[in-house]
Amino acid sequence: MPHRKEPGSVGVVKKKQFTCCEPPHELELEGGGRLGPITIAYETYGRLNKDRTNALLILHALSGDAHAAGKYFAEDAKPGWWDNTIGPGKAFDTDKFYVICSNVIGGCQGSTGPSSIHPATGKPFALSFPIVTVNDMVRAQARLVDHLGIERLFAVAGGSMGGMQALQWAVSYPDRVLASIPIATTAKHSPQQIAFNQVGRAAIMADPNFADGEYYGREVPKDGLALARMVGHITYLSDDSMHEKFGRRLRGKKTLGYSFNLDFEVETYLRYKGDAFVSRFDANSYLYITKAIDYFDLSLPSGSLVKALEKVRSKFLVISFKSDWLYPPYQSKEIVKALMVNGVDITYCEIDSRYGHDAFLLDAGEMSKIIRNFLENVAVRNGIAFPAAGA
Amino acid sequence: MPHRKEPGSVGVVKKKQFTCCEPPHELELEGGGRLGPITIAYETYGRLNKDRTNALLILHALSGDAHAAGKYFAEDAKPGWWDNTIGPGKAFDTDKFYVICSNVIGGCQGSTGPSSIHPATGKPFALSFPIVTVNDMVRAQARLVDHLGIERLFAVAGGSMGGMQALQWAVSYPDRVLASIPIATTAKHSPQQIAFNQVGRAAIMADPNFADGEYYGREVPKDGLALARMVGHITYLSDDSMHEKFGRRLRGKKTLGYSFNLDFEVETYLRYKGDAFVSRFDANSYLYITKAIDYFDLSLPSGSLVKALEKVRSKFLVISFKSDWLYPPYQSKEIVKALMVNGVDITYCEIDSRYGHDAFLLDAGEMSKIIRNFLENVAVRNGIAFPAAGA
Repeated sequence: MPHRKEPGSVGVVKKKQFTCCEPPHELELEGGGRLGPITIAYETYGRLNKDRTNALLILHALSGDAHAAGKYFAEDAKPGWWDNTIGPGKAFDTDKFYVICSNVIGGCQGSTGPSSIHPATGKPFALSFPIVTVNDMVRAQARLVDHLGIERLFAVAGGSMGGMQALQWAVSYPDRVLASIPIATTAKHSPQQIAFNQVGRAAIMADPNFADGEYYGREVPKDGLALARMVGHITYLSDDSMHEKFGRRLRGKKTLGYSFNLDFEVETYLRYKGDAFVSRFDANSYLYITKAIDYFDLSLPSGSLVKALEKVRSKFLVISFKSDWLYPPYQSKEIVKALMVNGVDITYCEIDSRYGHDAFLLDAGEMSKIIRNFLENVAVRNGIAFPAAGA
Repeated sequence: MPHRKEPGSVGVVKKKQFTCCEPPHELELEGGGRLGPITIAYETYGRLNKDRTNALLILHALSGDAHAAGKYFAEDAKPGWWDNTIGPGKAFDTDKFYVICSNVIGGCQGSTGPSSIHPATGKPFALSFPIVTVNDMVRAQARLVDHLGIERLFAVAGGSMGGMQALQWAVSYPDRVLASIPIATTAKHSPQQIAFNQVGRAAIMADPNFADGEYYGREVPKDGLALARMVGHITYLSDDSMHEKFGRRLRGKKTLGYSFNLDFEVETYLRYKGDAFVSRFDANSYLYITKAIDYFDLSLPSGSLVKALEKVRSKFLVISFKSDWLYPPYQSKEIVKALMVNGVDITYCEIDSRYGHDAFLLDAGEMSKIIRNFLENVAVRNGIAFPAAGA
């Protein structure tokens, strides 16, 4: 066993950007059309080894970004979104691995998306941005991985939409991924998942400030985007965790208000989360990214997930959470079964967390150990050399 | 065993109205304030026996009304909302029982609510309508039952919000209810249930046509109300039933559209249901009624459901549905336990339906038989005389 020090932080980090697909070499998109130039925001933590074989690609969820770990300045109160799993001694151990986190195209956190300037018009794309799919996101990331000089990734890992990308990587680039870790995800969006996303999109589009997406430089469709986020948050929490976190507790008073003001703590929480989201996320990106995950169906075009996974060569660790009703364990089990039919080396774990879908972000304890052990085993079996400690 | 003919329809029925609580005898409301005059829309099916002991009170859910059974004219394509359980030979057998269905106050289907004319101003109440609670709804219904000359109801029964009223009847009027049948309901709204309702209310209030509720005679907040209903419909269906009903089937095309048009059948369905709701329901009533059920907590003020139920004298049949994740079986079991602690004669059944919360409306097969048997047993044990067949 390697020496284990107290898990730490990657410290102060910087967002980087990479641009590719300059015309006439645009990315051909799955839904038709071409996109280029493409800028991708990304961050890296840890060091690449000499063989360039210790790179992990971390893939984010719907509202995530490239800032997965560390802080932007010493007093930064809010670390990256997966800081509890990425760092020295953590699940994705930056003493051993070179960790890359790439923002998705279609997003609004430094990568090309609907809020980017259209080179031909000098104005934001808005809804003239082409529809992108999870497959397109992954193909754009592959350019970034090329750029970083990495032939084969040690592992790809992510939760929710990040898990879809992890699956897509293993399918699209079977020779470029040694291990894949899809967490709290699905091989295809269910009608219920589509329905919740549709409500979010409908709320944005019904907001009079939406103006067919042409709201840049004006008031944004904040009510619609906040509503979309409120619906989202309900689906990320479990019934159990809501009982625990809020119950029927009242906000700032002892008796029911008998009015339409917010009475319950759960109402205040959702309202706050909805409003806060507006300041950091673009409504058009919300439309594009939810559409990408609604379109996600790995079994297309054959209709068979087993067939879709037959070229996979990576090892797999699939993780689900018992109380996750948005991406329920049965969806992970469908992936597991199809991989096993194909003889893939697969490990599956359903973690008994109460945190619902959010568990992959919040409840890192057991998940971290499972990921860490899995990565260590894959490294040992493949003779991967890590950078010398403290070097 | 009584002779059983093929279950039939109650035929053509009429909505009736009853007015009470004329000033200065207004109804004192739980949340403060007074309401009167109060008009209640109701319907009745079957005949009252000589002893006036065979009356059933049917209680409706959030968007229901007094029209529980039969048709308004011979060619009417749409019967009442519980026509599969109410009629000659059905669960609530109109050959035996005098069935009353009363619309709730705060509603918009013929009873006094926010769209009613405020006697003092000659204009609709809108948000000047007072907050009403489930307890207030039940106390208004008691006036209707008085008016019909019924001292004690044979049974009260309803699903969802109707189940809350059935519980409240047994608590508020222990001597006036022989049996209570709360279905797919809860003794108190959970934070998740409150959260979904809050999203609906927020959607209505964010609609620019809402105009602080003063939209009568103008364009109504149709986008907001449709959104609220779309969210509602997702929670009424189970994940399973959505797979069965929609899967990922596309609407009117064979391949994904790669646009923001509606692609999937589930999207078209929700959009249709949302839009259709706008033509039959008032947005302000949606606010008032969701608030009433969010406030519902039978354990107040003592904090103990056992204590709240200690004066109950009726028999109970509690029914839940396995796939109902909006009002999950554990909430029914909490009611059952608290009743059993109080020594109440209680029968509980969790029905293995795939239809989610909607099961109480759609999946009447086993539920109907269970209700029918329960009512027969109560009748026999209490020596209730039914009207002579065919008389």
